[in-house]
Amino acid sequence: MTRFDSRIDRPEAGRTAPADVEGGLAAVDGRIAAFFAERIGASAGYGDDYQRLWTSARAASDGGKRMRPRFVLSTVAALGGDIDAAAIDTATAFELLHTAFLLHDDVIDGDTVRRGRPNLSGEFAADATAHGVARGPARLWGESASILAGDLLLHAATALVGRLDVRAPVRERLLDVLDHSVVVTAAGELADVGLAVGLTPLSLPEVLGMTERKTAAYSVAGPILAGAVLAGADDALLSVLAEYGRLVGIAFQLGDDLLGVYGDQQRTGKSVVSDLREGKKTTLIAFARSTDEWPQIEARLGREDLGPSDAAELAAALEACGARRFVERLVADQVEQAVEALDSPHVPSLLAAELRALAATCIGRLG
Amino acid sequence: MTRFDSRIDRPEAGRTAPADVEGGLAAVDGRIAAFFAERIGASAGYGDDYQRLWTSARAASDGGKRMRPRFVLSTVAALGGDIDAAAIDTATAFELLHTAFLLHDDVIDGDTVRRGRPNLSGEFAADATAHGVARGPARLWGESASILAGDLLLHAATALVGRLDVRAPVRERLLDVLDHSVVVTAAGELADVGLAVGLTPLSLPEVLGMTERKTAAYSVAGPILAGAVLAGADDALLSVLAEYGRLVGIAFQLGDDLLGVYGDQQRTGKSVVSDLREGKKTTLIAFARSTDEWPQIEARLGREDLGPSDAAELAAALEACGARRFVERLVADQVEQAVEALDSPHVPSLLAAELRALAATCIGRLG
Repeated sequence: MTRFDSRIDRPEAGRTAPADVEGGLAAVDGRIAAFFAERIGASAGYGDDYQRLWTSARAASDGGKRMRPRFVLSTVAALGGDIDAAAIDTATAFELLHTAFLLHDDVIDGDTVRRGRPNLSGEFAADATAHGVARGPARLWGESASILAGDLLLHAATALVGRLDVRAPVRERLLDVLDHSVVVTAAGELADVGLAVGLTPLSLPEVLGMTERKTAAYSVAGPILAGAVLAGADDALLSVLAEYGRLVGIAFQLGDDLLGVYGDQQRTGKSVVSDLREGKKTTLIAFARSTDEWPQIEARLGREDLGPSDAAELAAALEACGARRFVERLVADQVEQAVEALDSPHVPSLLAAELRALAATCIGRLG
Repeated sequence: MTRFDSRIDRPEAGRTAPADVEGGLAAVDGRIAAFFAERIGASAGYGDDYQRLWTSARAASDGGKRMRPRFVLSTVAALGGDIDAAAIDTATAFELLHTAFLLHDDVIDGDTVRRGRPNLSGEFAADATAHGVARGPARLWGESASILAGDLLLHAATALVGRLDVRAPVRERLLDVLDHSVVVTAAGELADVGLAVGLTPLSLPEVLGMTERKTAAYSVAGPILAGAVLAGADDALLSVLAEYGRLVGIAFQLGDDLLGVYGDQQRTGKSVVSDLREGKKTTLIAFARSTDEWPQIEARLGREDLGPSDAAELAAALEACGARRFVERLVADQVEQAVEALDSPHVPSLLAAELRALAATCIGRLG
């Protein structure tokens, strides 16, 4: 993810207005901080647990790379729009939405750790245990807290867009974009659970479809479309951007799956063990399943005691069976198609340059 | 709940415009039906499971008494406002919000049945089991589906208000009301889980506070305030209505707790066993805890094998210890205070009459 972000951090001189985007991102951070400060303050009258819920929800939103706000603001800037209060709030809404999805995803996955620290549900469960609550009820307490925190942020994200001081048709279209992001992400999350519990047979089309829905829609296409709507884009441009966002979103997620097995943990901060230990149903795995190496891969995949050396051997097996090359090829194909999609008279040249650069960062992320 | 509703069904002639409210409620049903039809149609491209999620979410919203939409529309009508598209959509939003909360509440409570039928999570889990999925993963599938369905409806409720074609300050205030409803309900739900897992000591103030937050805020105060905002109420009136709604909301929920032990199951459709079998922490129980009868009550409360005759004996013990009388007294006090709150120059007489009648229906619901 590092290179992806750093490229957007430092756009080539003259292509866009870096000060606007960087200043806007600082404003988004300020907006998020102010939002949580207000809610934490207001929750004081509802008991310590509830105030802690808000404090932990704030912690859950810290440490993110603000990738989605950046997409919103970069698109606005590249289309010559203003990075005004409406743009800042829209960018903030996508970040809150992201945190809401993470909180619910953690409940669904039964995870109690994120980015190496106890997540909200882990923190609440540990606190209950420390107060003498048994393991089952403590876990319920943690999961309930995470469900509620996610609800609060999901509602806040939508309300933020609903409150925008923009013309009614712009607000309507932004809510359309948000609706679509939420509806498609839920479809992807359900598909992911279906694969995890074995209700959906593991196949490449299923895994690719799930990947597109669960992450790509709200992480790339949604923010870019929202930025374009704010900058007054017409239907023809929005339609190109929807297709571009879909393709780059998939490429980006596939790149993340590669980093989760072959990345440099020091550089990316992303474990190269946990995806394999969880037995995460990625495209790498879906491909490997149809190869002769599958029995040897399947035997270790998803084992709770899977350690770094097992992970390294699994990574090698996934490479030997052709899965790595296949997914790298897939990323390149998606990026190529995304760049081709930009070759349209509806896409202004400044935006096209920005988006071509963005698409290119999906390739070669393994360094 | 029957009398409560029937009173509002048939307001005294001349006090309000019954045709508007009844017609408006039919329009709300139509709006809900159209919303789900659109979403079910749009979900066809995302697989059978996802389409079933929407179909089941629709089923979860069926069979409700539309109490919250009724509060919105009755308030609008009593203040001489128009039951227009904005009023219908606001009323619809509160109904969708209610279903969203039920779906998440069922996950938190681990319930798989509602109104005598499998709920969304029970239905999905049963389907997974039928497809050979083991019990644990099947349960995860059911709970995940219910979390996602709740997310979708919560987002839809907020977006509906965000899309209202009303003046910006009206939309802002409606979103304030909705914000407050969501924020307070989450506080109440968290407090309820705290009591259930034993993290919060069972006490009357805790249980009363939880009752107010978990149900009263979004069920009574929120809809009445939203209706008043739509009809152009000023701050002074809104402040009276907030206090009235709070008091009546508590009275109403306490009445529900009484019906859950002493009601006529035939008439109310509400079991007089399940609250006791679950060991639900109601005000009845919080009171009983400080009486000499507590050991004998505690011994049976919350037992999974609790049957109708145990329930009848528990009900008698709760009556003997004074809990029933105490809660009935509490209801009467809340109602009296609510009616007193209406005695303000800021409350138009038509609305005051409507709300006095509404408050009165909280008393004597046991028939």
